[in-house]
Amino acid sequence: PASPPGLSAYVAVSQLLGLTLLATTGAWLGRYRGGVAWHSTLQFNVHPLCMVLGMVFLQGDALLVYRVFRHEAKRSTKALHALLHGLALLIALVGIVAVFESHRTKGISNMYSLHSWCGMAAFVLYLLQWLLGCGFFLLPGASFLLRSRYKPHHIFFGIALFTLSIAVCLLGITEMLLFNIRDSYSHFVPEGVLANTLGVLLVAFGLVVGYVLTRDDWKRPPLAEELALSMDFKTLTEGESPGGGS
Amino acid sequence: PASPPGLSAYVAVSQLLGLTLLATTGAWLGRYRGGVAWHSTLQFNVHPLCMVLGMVFLQGDALLVYRVFRHEAKRSTKALHALLHGLALLIALVGIVAVFESHRTKGISNMYSLHSWCGMAAFVLYLLQWLLGCGFFLLPGASFLLRSRYKPHHIFFGIALFTLSIAVCLLGITEMLLFNIRDSYSHFVPEGVLANTLGVLLVAFGLVVGYVLTRDDWKRPPLAEELALSMDFKTLTEGESPGGGS
Repeated sequence: PASPPGLSAYVAVSQLLGLTLLATTGAWLGRYRGGVAWHSTLQFNVHPLCMVLGMVFLQGDALLVYRVFRHEAKRSTKALHALLHGLALLIALVGIVAVFESHRTKGISNMYSLHSWCGMAAFVLYLLQWLLGCGFFLLPGASFLLRSRYKPHHIFFGIALFTLSIAVCLLGITEMLLFNIRDSYSHFVPEGVLANTLGVLLVAFGLVVGYVLTRDDWKRPPLAEELALSMDFKTLTEGESPGGGS
Repeated sequence: PASPPGLSAYVAVSQLLGLTLLATTGAWLGRYRGGVAWHSTLQFNVHPLCMVLGMVFLQGDALLVYRVFRHEAKRSTKALHALLHGLALLIALVGIVAVFESHRTKGISNMYSLHSWCGMAAFVLYLLQWLLGCGFFLLPGASFLLRSRYKPHHIFFGIALFTLSIAVCLLGITEMLLFNIRDSYSHFVPEGVLANTLGVLLVAFGLVVGYVLTRDDWKRPPLAEELALSMDFKTLTEGESPGGGS
């Protein structure tokens, strides 16, 4: 069965934006910040790289799997969704360890800035959302009714956490620029323009992913057998059917 | 007819958060930044106050009117929606003039930071969205079909611009703190903690408003006469009905 017109183009644009994001982050760190290395003064630079890769690119792609693999069995798509989020969490954890280690080495305080408050909240809630998601949707314990009750909340908080993660990246970019090139930033030096462009790309990635996710007619249609199951259930309970995929 | 259970509580919390936002902004500017005045060195402070009031509180409330006044005639709710957004735009314009004037007086460059790039984009797109909204939904020219095609895009970009506006406020808070209390920020001085708290409140306001807006069963139900009209239209054109309100 064919995908709805337009969907593939939007997904392609999102992936192009995502790869450009990573390249731009790499270019910034490599060209202007000395590169990336763990056991060195460059350890800090692991932080932005991991956060953009984990909390933005992989988190965003994990949200898209139900749209991209719309005709696969729900079971496998769900496993991929959980796996990508798990990978995103691991990479984000490495990024968080990097900044705490780097601060310890340099004697800088932790957790005083708005970036750190929002970022830590985003990470902890993202981990919690992942655990809840696994508990409700992967383990066999939760009933069909419980799943269908939790699902809209899982979706809302998923999109909200993705959005918050992007906002936190913008805060991180602003902090880095004001700490490193405070005086030349206002003269439109190349590093400032490049980092601002990274910020704009992050917003664009969020917009395209958000658009694909929320377009009603792009939601994953339930497969014939899923529909039959859900109908049976509806007849049995006279409750609400959990509707199409996503 | 009764409102869905829970909706009023969430709307009440959103308004409480909104007022706390304004109070916290006022407290920050009044207690630590010398207050607010137009013809003085305090002109800059008009900027954060107007942006939080216009681009966040009023923009958010304008989005909520279809949920709050769910049983009023669509015509009056629509007028209120446009009016609140118009007021938000006016107040935001005053806030933008304030920062440009203040920069001119102090000899500071404009439009070099990520905050300014994203903020200007948010304002210009918000103005455009308002003009398009008036053109499609208030003026009599647009056909029923055209309106129902544009509506989901209007809603998506409305929520996206509201979210972006909040992210831009977080960037502004971070800039202000790093320009004003760069060295003491890491010692958890009261001004830093207060401004961080303002940031967290902004995120909370966005979350609650976003939740109210996107909950399916809280959408505005079409009134009986609207439903009849839409049915007539559907029969006439065999096209799609634009569905429930919002």
